[in-house]
Amino acid sequence: MIRSISSAANPLVKLARALDRKKARTETGLFVAEGARHVTEGLDRGWRLHAVLAAESAVDRPQVRALLTRADATGAEAVTLPDHLLETLTHRDNAQSVIGLFRQQLGDLEAFDTSRPLIALEAPRDPGNLGTIIRTADSTGCAGVVLLGVSCDPFSMESVRASMGSVFAMPVVRAEAAGFFDWADAHGVRVFGTSLEGSQRHTDTDLTGPVAILMGTEQSGLTADSAARCSGLIRLPMAGGADSLNLGIATAVTVYEVWRQRGFDGARF
Amino acid sequence: MIRSISSAANPLVKLARALDRKKARTETGLFVAEGARHVTEGLDRGWRLHAVLAAESAVDRPQVRALLTRADATGAEAVTLPDHLLETLTHRDNAQSVIGLFRQQLGDLEAFDTSRPLIALEAPRDPGNLGTIIRTADSTGCAGVVLLGVSCDPFSMESVRASMGSVFAMPVVRAEAAGFFDWADAHGVRVFGTSLEGSQRHTDTDLTGPVAILMGTEQSGLTADSAARCSGLIRLPMAGGADSLNLGIATAVTVYEVWRQRGFDGARF
Repeated sequence: MIRSISSAANPLVKLARALDRKKARTETGLFVAEGARHVTEGLDRGWRLHAVLAAESAVDRPQVRALLTRADATGAEAVTLPDHLLETLTHRDNAQSVIGLFRQQLGDLEAFDTSRPLIALEAPRDPGNLGTIIRTADSTGCAGVVLLGVSCDPFSMESVRASMGSVFAMPVVRAEAAGFFDWADAHGVRVFGTSLEGSQRHTDTDLTGPVAILMGTEQSGLTADSAARCSGLIRLPMAGGADSLNLGIATAVTVYEVWRQRGFDGARF
Repeated sequence: MIRSISSAANPLVKLARALDRKKARTETGLFVAEGARHVTEGLDRGWRLHAVLAAESAVDRPQVRALLTRADATGAEAVTLPDHLLETLTHRDNAQSVIGLFRQQLGDLEAFDTSRPLIALEAPRDPGNLGTIIRTADSTGCAGVVLLGVSCDPFSMESVRASMGSVFAMPVVRAEAAGFFDWADAHGVRVFGTSLEGSQRHTDTDLTGPVAILMGTEQSGLTADSAARCSGLIRLPMAGGADSLNLGIATAVTVYEVWRQRGFDGARF
C-alpha cells in the first residue's frame, strides 16, 4: 500500500534525515540513493530496498508511479510526501523527487573476476572522490573497488551522489592492506601503486593481465608498507606548477591506460 | 606595518567573509586563496595581493612571518587575527592559517601559445569540477582554460581550493563560443569536442599540433552549434552501467591522451 505522509516527525522521514550521518548509517545498515532512475537501478541490480519516498508533485509521472508500485510489491515502504518535506532530506537546491533507502551491501574479494582490473584505495578521505572513482571503475569495466584501512564511507550521500548510480553496479570491498596483498599474491594479481616516487610512467608499464591499481591517500600518498609490497610503482607525468593530481583524476588516467592496453576490451563503443 | 585585529566587525574581516559570495567578488574584483603556500605562489606569479590575514597561532612560523613581511612590502594589508575568527572565513574544519585576498585576473585568447593544448569548457556549473580542471590543465602543460558562455566562477572559494594553486599558473579566459571558434580558425587550432555522439575514440584521433579540447556541460554535453563547428568529435570508451563520466575525469583522460601523443613533452618526469 502506498501511504501518504505529511509530518516532519514521521519516523520514516526522521530515519531518512538521520541517514545523512555516519552513525545512523552504521546503526541501521541503510543508505540513501536519490532520483527515480538510480532507485530503479538499485532494484534492477537486486539491492534490498527498505523504503521509497516520492514528492507529491511527482507521483503522476509514470516512472515514479511504477517505482512506487514496484517498491511496494517488494515489501518496501512506499510513501508520498509534500515536496518541501522531501527537499529537507536531500540538502540541495535542485532536489530529486524520489529517494530510496537501501540496505548497504559490501562485496567480497574472493568473488572478483581477476581478469578485470581492480582499483584499490588506501584510506580515501573525500567521499566525493570516492563516489567519482566508483563511477569511473564502472565506466571502465573494472571488477570493483577495494578500500584499505580507515576509509570514508562509500554509502554517504555525497559518495552515492557522485557515483551516479554506479554504487549499485560496482562491488566495493573493505580489507586490511596485508590481507589484500595476500589475496593478490594468492590469485596472481599484480598490484601497481601510483606514487610521486614511482620509477616508471604508466604508459611504459605492462598493465595487462590480472592487475590492481593502488592509489594512496589524498594527503600523503601510499604508505611505505604498501609501496614495499607492490609489483611496481608507476607515476603519471606532470608538468607546470602543480605537484599532484586530484585523487579521482589520477585514478581515472591510470585506469584508462590499463584499459587502453587491453584494447578497450568490453567497451560499448 | 603588520596590524593585529580582533573584531568580527573589522572591515577587512567583513570583506573577506563577503568574498564567499559571487556578488561581492564581482563588485570588488577580489577573491580568496587559502594557505600560506598558495598565497606565496600567487605573489611569486605576480598576482596583485590586496590583503593577507594570518592566524595568531601561526605568526611565529617562519614561512608565515616572511609572507606577512613580504605582503606588507608590496603595499598589501598584512594582519593577524585570532584563530577562531580566521576559521569563520574559510568554512571548514581543517582551516588554513593564512588567507590572501587577491585581485582577479583573466587571461587573453590572443596571448595563448598555441603549440600547447587548450581546454575549453562550455558553461561548466560545478566550481569543484572547474578548479580540478584548472589543476589538471596546469599538470599537463596546457596553455590555459577557456570558459564559453555562462560559466561558474573560477574565483569562487570552491574552485580556487580545488585548483590547489593552479589558478595562479593557468590563464583562464572567458569567451563567447562564436568568438572562440573564430579565433581557433584564424590561428590554425583544431577544436575537438568530446561527445557521447562522437564518431572516433580519443586514442584513434590525431591530437598533435595546435588543438583545443572542448567539453560540454555536466548536464547536457556539447551544444549542437558548438559540435557543428568542431574539427572532430571524439568519444571516450565506456563500459558497464554508467552512461557518462564526471566532467573533470573526462577532461583529464582526454588531455592526458593529447599529451601522450606528444610524448609527454615538457614533463618533469
